Amino acid sequence: MASQGKKLINDPDDVVTEFIEGLVETYPNLQYLDGFPEVKVVVRADVSPATYDKVAVISGGGSGHEPAHAGFVGEGMLTAAICGDVFASPPVDAVLAGIRAVTGPMGCLLIVKNYTGDRLNFGLATELAKSEGYMVEMVIVGDDCALPPPRGIVGRRGLAGTILVHKVAGAAATAGLSLKDVAAEAKRASEMVGTMGVALSVCTLPGQATSNRLGPGKMELGLGIHGEPGVAVADIQPVDIVISHVLTKILSPESNYVPISRGHRVVIMINGLGATPIMELMIASGKTITKLQLEHGLAVDRVYVGSLMTSLDMAGFSITIMKADQSILQRLDAATRAPAWPVGVDGNRPTPKFPVPMPPSSLKAMNVSSSRPQELSKQGLLLEAAIEAAAKAVIDIKDQLNEWDGEAGDADCGSTLFKGATAILEDLKNHYPLNDAAETVNEVGTSIRVMGGTSGIIYNIFSKAVYAKLKGSAISPKQWAEAFEAGINAISKYGGASAGYRTMLDALIPASRVLHEKLDAGVDPVTAFVLSSEAALAGAESTKEMQAQAGRASYISEANLRSVPDPGAMAVASWYRAAALAVKDKMSAS
Amino acid sequence: MASQGKKLINDPDDVVTEFIEGLVETYPNLQYLDGFPEVKVVVRADVSPATYDKVAVISGGGSGHEPAHAGFVGEGMLTAAICGDVFASPPVDAVLAGIRAVTGPMGCLLIVKNYTGDRLNFGLATELAKSEGYMVEMVIVGDDCALPPPRGIVGRRGLAGTILVHKVAGAAATAGLSLKDVAAEAKRASEMVGTMGVALSVCTLPGQATSNRLGPGKMELGLGIHGEPGVAVADIQPVDIVISHVLTKILSPESNYVPISRGHRVVIMINGLGATPIMELMIASGKTITKLQLEHGLAVDRVYVGSLMTSLDMAGFSITIMKADQSILQRLDAATRAPAWPVGVDGNRPTPKFPVPMPPSSLKAMNVSSSRPQELSKQGLLLEAAIEAAAKAVIDIKDQLNEWDGEAGDADCGSTLFKGATAILEDLKNHYPLNDAAETVNEVGTSIRVMGGTSGIIYNIFSKAVYAKLKGSAISPKQWAEAFEAGINAISKYGGASAGYRTMLDALIPASRVLHEKLDAGVDPVTAFVLSSEAALAGAESTKEMQAQAGRASYISEANLRSVPDPGAMAVASWYRAAALAVKDKMSAS
Repeated sequence: MASQGKKLINDPDDVVTEFIEGLVETYPNLQYLDGFPEVKVVVRADVSPATYDKVAVISGGGSGHEPAHAGFVGEGMLTAAICGDVFASPPVDAVLAGIRAVTGPMGCLLIVKNYTGDRLNFGLATELAKSEGYMVEMVIVGDDCALPPPRGIVGRRGLAGTILVHKVAGAAATAGLSLKDVAAEAKRASEMVGTMGVALSVCTLPGQATSNRLGPGKMELGLGIHGEPGVAVADIQPVDIVISHVLTKILSPESNYVPISRGHRVVIMINGLGATPIMELMIASGKTITKLQLEHGLAVDRVYVGSLMTSLDMAGFSITIMKADQSILQRLDAATRAPAWPVGVDGNRPTPKFPVPMPPSSLKAMNVSSSRPQELSKQGLLLEAAIEAAAKAVIDIKDQLNEWDGEAGDADCGSTLFKGATAILEDLKNHYPLNDAAETVNEVGTSIRVMGGTSGIIYNIFSKAVYAKLKGSAISPKQWAEAFEAGINAISKYGGASAGYRTMLDALIPASRVLHEKLDAGVDPVTAFVLSSEAALAGAESTKEMQAQAGRASYISEANLRSVPDPGAMAVASWYRAAALAVKDKMSAS
Repeated sequence: MASQGKKLINDPDDVVTEFIEGLVETYPNLQYLDGFPEVKVVVRADVSPATYDKVAVISGGGSGHEPAHAGFVGEGMLTAAICGDVFASPPVDAVLAGIRAVTGPMGCLLIVKNYTGDRLNFGLATELAKSEGYMVEMVIVGDDCALPPPRGIVGRRGLAGTILVHKVAGAAATAGLSLKDVAAEAKRASEMVGTMGVALSVCTLPGQATSNRLGPGKMELGLGIHGEPGVAVADIQPVDIVISHVLTKILSPESNYVPISRGHRVVIMINGLGATPIMELMIASGKTITKLQLEHGLAVDRVYVGSLMTSLDMAGFSITIMKADQSILQRLDAATRAPAWPVGVDGNRPTPKFPVPMPPSSLKAMNVSSSRPQELSKQGLLLEAAIEAAAKAVIDIKDQLNEWDGEAGDADCGSTLFKGATAILEDLKNHYPLNDAAETVNEVGTSIRVMGGTSGIIYNIFSKAVYAKLKGSAISPKQWAEAFEAGINAISKYGGASAGYRTMLDALIPASRVLHEKLDAGVDPVTAFVLSSEAALAGAESTKEMQAQAGRASYISEANLRSVPDPGAMAVASWYRAAALAVKDKMSAS
């Protein structure tokens, strides 16, 4: 199934020039030379060769590795990047144009990944530039550790470690060093770095078919950044095992690719190959650090994570390890304006890091569990009667609520509320400090956490908001009404619904409105409570005519819902009315 | 073919905690709360609630959107990020723990994407925190512009625009504003931003199968960040057309989602969904800027490009447009240590950007084409005879070279060199300034550019290096020998081969050695030249016994190559010997 690869591009032949145009539009400090399509060169917008008094640092190569190398152009890193076509070395004229565009009297250093095409094109450009009178040096980076030690020159490819060499050289140049010294630092850095990659997929070139080389469940170890086949194909393993294998390869004393041994300090780079989520890169980062410290006896001083040297849309990553010393760390930490250089990494890492202890609640009394008073006050008795009646009312209509809910949802509204009501009845017996109405409301909220799901949270929000309003006040009927309203407002705010949305608010809002009206009109509080409960019921019944605007029922057509009330609203009407009638009975009896 | 999705992870249940562990190891300024697995909270390592004198800015939500939100924790942006499981809202206790961990007397602002689960969990935590005495405000962001204007609250999802709201709020808090004012700035920002996404693939959850929903050649328009189906499925179009559609949707005056119209200033964000190459994001960035300016009459002040709010490994991007004014730009430009916030973008964009003109060569005489002198000097006549003989020798053995090359390569060595030799003979007649040996060698290098390929560049490097050494000197035989050696060294340096690698160097190096030896021993120059040409031939013949170490032949087994000489080395021996004999003849004749 080699189907055409999917890309969000225009003409596949224009991807590099359109990339460069977008790049320089995005970053104010970058510019490009007017030489499309042959000359594709990104330069610092603020560097003019006539006046530039630092060594210019230039890199480049085939495109398809973005953000490398153009994203690393900026003060403190590269002065110019020479871009070839996708996975193709740039022509000599492009390299030469880049050299001319940024090289001043201090000269320029070319940093080249070890591929024959790049060596030759950059090499010829170097010779041509020298014959034009420029001072030019070239450093070649071959950091690949996947292949066995080479018989000849073809072995070690230039991979993501090249970016660390760019940074060292760029910082050295910015510090004002001579070409000879900048080149020496770059060469030294290139000899201290090793990289190995692992991939889950093969990259797709613009306009071409996606390769089918890697089957399901397979990964490639030790592959290059142009989709070259890896050294080995293996079944996908847990990333812990993959990382152990890669680290052992890079640090192998047999191949002796990097001069790193137990007790040394290192910096690492976890480099995404283009389609690897940051989540996976960070998991790899954490595991790599731990393994280097515990299994290889290395201290990790800096960690660079990101998709920095990619292979178009390849899934996978490479791990780079560089030996660190004060000189290297100083260069890596130096400021740069290159947009793709990772930030937030400079400075010494506290090691090891222990997580921060969880902060306790700031409520002093939080851990004191409340309990039922020995003797109930008159208000306590009323509250007990109301809560008990309300909970029992919900229990009584469980099946009816489930049935209504089944018309639009998953038929569990009654069962969910039943759980909460049962918990309330249980806790009512022992825990509620009934003489303190505010704290009792708070405890009701705690009881109904067992409900879970959206309605559990909504009722919890309601009780916490009512509690916050009641707290500390000697509670008058008017204050009850205000606290009730505060709870309703919290439901509306966090749940996002309003009156008419076919939710529990269609019972609560009319109840609150009538309660306020009657109390304001001087009606006695118990009567006002009962009258408001009639409004709640009427409101709940009116949901039969409403199209749902929130929750799962909003996806059901109006016709299907006609004549079925919203079960959430009906539940409110039931418990609210039961509470009102219980208070009325209790007051009549006393 | 719903196969198990490929991921480089360990246990799918541990991806979020392992991500957080890696994140805080990577960034020295980040920490996490010791509450795994329920409480997954990343905090600034330098903030203690007891002493923190700014408004804390907290965000969060389901994981799978990395780097959002934990990567935006840092001075100047978020103070804490609350991480749920993949695509699942974090529990109330986690939000509450995050509030307690960073909130000081100035209070905290929660910025929440508009999903019911997040609204309710963050909402309940807000109410609980308030009841503990914290000052808490919450701002909800719903920037999605893909769906038609909502009937209810479910319509507008929180997407990548949320990150811009984080930045505005974080900068306002860092500037010392009160909770009320920080919340007001965040709310205002949330009302000025719109986003729409387009995807080429569906994301794969850790441990689950990859969805097959999107067929080959199809894309989804207007999808969410949890793999929700898009509003429309369409055939993949050129990205220009896709972007035009998305911009029109976001800026639609009918839906009126953002208060942006012609003449306004905006900032934009091109956000990769997790598996989108930077190349594609930058192409989209450039095109979006152009279209906004030319088609919508908007000035683009800032451009943020990257994979910032992802959907695991989804391929595609979203475009976000925010209305800009001085207040917004000031907040967006303010410094932050949040590692995932894009850098290199602050400051005013020069608009429009024209590419930098190509710098000319610094060689004054570069554009003056050379020509054959009216009369040749003695040295000019010798040079002409040598060049002519050398070129003809290469032409004569074309077929033999191709035959040898066919044993190990693609049988074009003779044909390639033939092209160069023919060009040399042509240019020799008219262009070579033969009385100036250095410039003539330079011109030979220019002639052979027509060869192309690796050997064309290598010969070109050779001639340029010889030229650089000869230039300016009155040329003695000793200087010729030194220039010859310089050319050989350049081939070795840029090509990477040495003696014994079965390359042209195996003819060149012995020739150079013998030439030096004989000249040093006082042998007359012509005889030394002829003797060195015998060494070249012997060296070329010796390649029959060599295993290739460089070039394509290095992949062929030794047995296959035995008794076949390296054609490149044989070509050198032929032209070098022909040149030597021609010089000898000419000297004898004169």
